[in-house]
Formats: sequence, structure tokens, C-alpha cells
Amino acid sequence: MVTINENYLKLSGGYLFSEIGRRVTRFKAENPQVHIINLGIGDVAGPLPQAVIESMHQAVDEMAWPETFRGYGPEQGYDFLINSIIEHDYRSRGIELDADEIFISDGSKCDTGNIQEIFGIENVVAITDPVYPVYVDTNVMAGRGGEADAAGGFERIVYLPCNAENSFVPQLPEQRVGLIYLCYPNNPTGTTLSKAELKKWVDYARENRSVILYDAAYEAFIREEDIPHSIYEIEGAMEVAIEFRSFSKTAGFTGTRCAFTVVPKRVVGYTRESEAVSLNRLWNRRQTTKFNGVSYVVQRGAAAVYTPEGQRQVREMIDYYMTNASIIRNGLLKMGFQVYGGVNAPYIWLKTLDGMDSWTFFDRLLKDACVVGTPGAGFGPAGEGYFRLTAFGAREDTQEAIERIKNGLKL
Amino acid sequence: MVTINENYLKLSGGYLFSEIGRRVTRFKAENPQVHIINLGIGDVAGPLPQAVIESMHQAVDEMAWPETFRGYGPEQGYDFLINSIIEHDYRSRGIELDADEIFISDGSKCDTGNIQEIFGIENVVAITDPVYPVYVDTNVMAGRGGEADAAGGFERIVYLPCNAENSFVPQLPEQRVGLIYLCYPNNPTGTTLSKAELKKWVDYARENRSVILYDAAYEAFIREEDIPHSIYEIEGAMEVAIEFRSFSKTAGFTGTRCAFTVVPKRVVGYTRESEAVSLNRLWNRRQTTKFNGVSYVVQRGAAAVYTPEGQRQVREMIDYYMTNASIIRNGLLKMGFQVYGGVNAPYIWLKTLDGMDSWTFFDRLLKDACVVGTPGAGFGPAGEGYFRLTAFGAREDTQEAIERIKNGLKL
Repeated sequence: MVTINENYLKLSGGYLFSEIGRRVTRFKAENPQVHIINLGIGDVAGPLPQAVIESMHQAVDEMAWPETFRGYGPEQGYDFLINSIIEHDYRSRGIELDADEIFISDGSKCDTGNIQEIFGIENVVAITDPVYPVYVDTNVMAGRGGEADAAGGFERIVYLPCNAENSFVPQLPEQRVGLIYLCYPNNPTGTTLSKAELKKWVDYARENRSVILYDAAYEAFIREEDIPHSIYEIEGAMEVAIEFRSFSKTAGFTGTRCAFTVVPKRVVGYTRESEAVSLNRLWNRRQTTKFNGVSYVVQRGAAAVYTPEGQRQVREMIDYYMTNASIIRNGLLKMGFQVYGGVNAPYIWLKTLDGMDSWTFFDRLLKDACVVGTPGAGFGPAGEGYFRLTAFGAREDTQEAIERIKNGLKL
Repeated sequence: MVTINENYLKLSGGYLFSEIGRRVTRFKAENPQVHIINLGIGDVAGPLPQAVIESMHQAVDEMAWPETFRGYGPEQGYDFLINSIIEHDYRSRGIELDADEIFISDGSKCDTGNIQEIFGIENVVAITDPVYPVYVDTNVMAGRGGEADAAGGFERIVYLPCNAENSFVPQLPEQRVGLIYLCYPNNPTGTTLSKAELKKWVDYARENRSVILYDAAYEAFIREEDIPHSIYEIEGAMEVAIEFRSFSKTAGFTGTRCAFTVVPKRVVGYTRESEAVSLNRLWNRRQTTKFNGVSYVVQRGAAAVYTPEGQRQVREMIDYYMTNASIIRNGLLKMGFQVYGGVNAPYIWLKTLDGMDSWTFFDRLLKDACVVGTPGAGFGPAGEGYFRLTAFGAREDTQEAIERIKNGLKL
């Protein structure tokens, strides 16, 4: 008899965004005439930067001739992309990385979901709460969650609440934990950590021989000084941190799929006998065994992001979204909402009024304003009573959404 | 202290093809003037069919405008591709599938590597031997392998030897197993199973409530009648089999990346309490949580394979490779080798002479003929003394390789 992985049964019905999709589809079926504005899933409005388009066309042409055709590439990605990443994203900030410390992938969702495979099942996992559901769900699937509790949490996961009361700065865990997921600029709260705050985490990890899984998918949206773009700006992080970056939001790659993960060779995990093992070696074994590299055409597109035109076009795109963020942020503030994020991140995190729960607020916003957002509770217990809106919409949609909320929302 | 997944340490140094790459690189460095012909890794010579090229260009253009831009797509793939697959690959053979039984992915390596996640760690896994290393390695990583033995096998894996003695037809396992990996047309041996032979496996799985993981990545190369293209041609398979298909070899997508997995809703696994759970539901949860869909441009390219021009171009490409297969097969037969495969598959499996071991033959072939192949032992204990060549080279390279082996190989 074949048995299933019963850890899957501990997870709630569906992935958060599938549940949102279901509710929106139902609402659309019942109200076919209305124009729904989606500020929920955090998908970009596009299009791809012109430099990326040109580079992809060129790469498609290369695939048409035996002389320039590309078959299997390196599972870790092509050097032309890796070298551009090292030069532009790291060396420019004084961070030195070797080419074999970068692993190109088809998305940070995959990487942040798969990275836990190289760690032992017995590790205690700490996450900030609210959090991107992938970190929790993938650990629950692997058996690191334990049982679900009534509040929607899991008994073996260490939740580090981030809310208005602590200004969204998580406290160090009281117990020793093995793995720590940090995401800054944060999804979903849009908040950041200063270098001094982040240093506390690096120090904690060094003292406790923990590993920090640092999701920096939104670093391109940082506007203020003293906010670290990479965890490797912090002294000692090269020994304890793995960093995830993505082209999804930076360059509109949500439907094109490219990201990368940095695993410095000095970062180690331990056998139960306390023998240190390079995580770079394990991740390389994982990727070469279970992955076959990113489409050549897509990697050529990603590389174009680092050309002078690509850089200019990407900056314009990010400026566009950050103007949206201001519109949402200021609009909601004027309506009397408590609002967080939206300054160094494309996410705006608001507190619902009168202690309304997140899913009720979701349904109300959909019904009254035909605007889709993401219920804070979907990101973890501490997200209850909060709600996320994203700056990735088209300008006119974003403006109209704020107008509709102002005029239509009955609370 | 963060602990690692110690199962990784049970695996040998590197993934098979990385080890081959290392040896070839060293030989190249020592012999920079020679032209090495690679009939090893099974990569296509390209290029992509013209219909695919045109479709990808069109899709890239769509990504350039907000009106036609595509952001996040369905994790399971776009309907335009799924419906073409159902129509052309299944309905045409009398097999009815629903759209939500097909999952588009970026490669069969990923799918055959990831599928084991939805099953319990306690399952006993049966594999034919020799075998595509991904099936074994991913189960060892997950903890289903147990300890490695001296012969290069793992104690908890049930090996079903396939060799000249049993005409490469595996025997049913003597004990009850939970998971069975079958790959037909077979990689690496190039052999096939008749419908009657495959039916024995489906019957076994139904009787023992096992699941068959059926890798049909090479089905497009089948030439003879009575060889099943899909396991669902066998009665009852819809209840016990998951099928993997790929565009890699069929349409030259090794560097473009697209594949799919079929998980019929009637296929179930069991909880330890013997409660049946739909594997479609579990795989859907896995994919929506850890994967974000295949690049839109790539899916458009794959869909073009099903247009009349695409079908014609793909058939031409496959004919080209199968002519290569004949050249290799006949050339080796004339030299006195025992040769298998190469009739319904792009792989030619030969027995080395005088009981030479596979890696010695590899080194000899590289040194004497500057031809790269794949040592049979790299595919499992029963592959020792065998060697794989692939038909995916350019015609003149393939012809020259056979000439060089004939004239240069000193055995």
C-alpha cells in the first residue's frame, strides 16, 4: 500500500492566493458587469522593459540555428547572468561573491520553498508573523510544523509577531532556533529593518549557529538611506545567511520567471555529530539533481536588466510603482486608517477599523468597492485585523481604487 | 545549532553528468586541439522548430505592451497548452483527461524529482536497474534509500535488474512495494515494454495498491506497433499511474524548458489508517505552494508544437535523430558489439567487450576516439559493463563518432 505524506493534510484547504482567486471568481460570476481592481496578489501590471524584450527576441533567434542553439545549460545558470549579478548587485555595494555562490532559478517562490530540503527535519524554524505563506507551508509539508493549532499556527514553528505595538520589529527568539526566515523589505507589511536591527539577527545566528534565510525580493524598492539592500552588508552575514533575490517585481518577470539565490561557501550547517558541512555544496547537489536550469531565452532577458538601458527602464518602472504606493498610502491615511509600509516597499499594510477581522474586511472591500486586497490573517495569526494592498496596479486603477474605497466602503 | 539533511551525505560525490563533465573538461584541458564528439548527456543538437520560434517571438511581443502583457499565470499552466496536450497526445489515443489532471512544468527532471514529496517516507521504492539517477537520488535525499552499499546501491530501494539475460524486461517485485518508477521507452537502455508486459505492472499496482510513476519522456520516438505511448492505454492505469512527458527531446526544448505531468483524479494514496487521498489534490497543493508556473513565452512555444506545422517539423526532427540511432546501432553491430535500443528510442545501449567495466570503457573511448558516452554503471549496479550512446548529435558528428570508434578504439 502506497502511503501519502500526511503532513499535507495538516495544511488548510488551499494556498492563500488560490482561496482569494476562488472568492473573486464567485463574485465576478454573480456580478459580471463590474470592473474589479486587483491590488491583491502583488502581480505587476507590466510590460517588460524594452531592453528585456529586445534581448529575448535575440535569444529566440539564436535558438533557430544549430550554430547558436542552446540545449542544456548549467543547472546553476549561465555565467553571463551570474557575472552581471555579482557586478551590479553586490560588488557595487562592496560585497565580493564567487560565481559558484550564485544559483539562477525560475523563481524565489521555488527557492524559498525548496531551500528547507537541505536541512534536517528536526530543526526549529522561526518566522516573523505575518509572513509569506510559502515559508511556513513548505516546512509543514516537510514535517517541521507539528500539529496545527486553533489560531491557524503550527506548534513547532516559532512565531515572532510583528505588529503596530512593536513597530513591526521582531524580537529575537527566546529559545535557540535552527532556521530563521527574514524578508526585508517585508512582504506583507512593507516595513524594513535598519542595519543595526539586522545586525542583531546576524549576531544571534553566529552565536547560536543558526542560518538566516533572507528574502530580499523587494530590495529594488528601497528609497531611504541606512536600509540594507543585502544582508551581506552586515558583518559576519557571509557565514550565516542565504539570500534570495528575484526579477519578478524588479523587472516585471512574474510571468517570465527568473530569480536567484546566493549561498556563500562559508555558510555551514551541522551533522548531528556537530561536523560542519558547506550548505553551498548541498544546495548545488539539490539543484543539479532536481532542476535543469532556467530557459536560455529567459536568462538572456534577465541579463538585459543590467545593461544601462535596462537599468534606466527598471528604475522608471519602480518609480511608477512607488508613486502608486504613495497614492495608496496617503489616500488611506486621509481616510483615517493606520497605514504601514509603502515607503521602501510596494506593499501597504493597513489596520482594519473597529477591530474587524481580515477576511470580513476582504469581503466588504470586494462588495462595496470591487477592490481585491489580501487579508492579513492569510499571512499568519499576527496578521489578523490587518490587510495588504499592493502598488503593482496601473496608475488609473490605483487611483480609482482609492476613490472607490473613500466613497464606497461602508464600515 | 542548525542541522543538515544528512541523507545528502549518503549520495556519491556528484550527479552523474557532473562527473562526466569534470572528466571531459580535464581531457579537453590536456588535449586542447582535439574535437570531442559528445554522445553522452542526451542533449539535442537543435535548433527549435520554426513554428516554436515564431510563436515565441509573438509571445515576447505580447510581453512588451500592457494590454497583452502576462504576469503570474496559473501554477498548473495555461489552458491553451493543456487543451492542446489533451487533444493531441491523449484524446487521439482514446484517453480522456480533464484539464485539471495536467500540470505544466519546467522539466521532467523537476517533476520526477519532486513527485516523491507527496508520498510518505516509509514507502518502499522499486526501480528498474539501470535507471535515470534522479529517481534514486531524490528518494535517497528524502530518506527512502537507507544506507548505501558497496555496489553503489541503497539498502531500502528494491532494484529490478534489466539486462541482456532477461531481455531488459523487469520482473515484478517479490515483496509489496509502494512506489514503482518505470520509464518507457527506457532511459538508458532504449528498450520498450509491450502492452501485455505493461499490463502486468498495472495489475500488480491495482492488487497491491501501489502507484506507478511512468516516465514517458521518449514516447515520440516509438516506431513499432503495439508499444504503448501512454500508460493510460492500459486498462486500469487511470487508478494507479502518474505519467510524465517532456518537450525536451520531442521538440528540442532541453534549453527552453517545458514538460508536463498527468495526475488523474482517480489515482490515490493512503493514510496510515488506509484512508484514500487523491494524489491530484496533493500534487496541486505541492505545485501551487512551491512553483509559480512556466514562463508564458515558453508555454506559447510549446503550444506551437501542436500546430500542423509544428507537428510536421517535430516529426522531421525525430526522423533525423532516429536515422542517427540506426547509424550508431548498425555501426556497433558491425563491430561486433551486443547492442540494444535505438529502434523505438534515441538511446543505444551496448555491452562493453571482454567484461570491461563502464568507467574504464568511458575513459578509453574518450582517449582513443575522443567520443563521450555515458557509463552504464552511472545508472545503477545492473548497468555495470554497459555503456550508453545517444542519437541526439548532428548527423556528421554521429557518423564520425562511429568511424572513430571503428578505427581508433583499442580494446
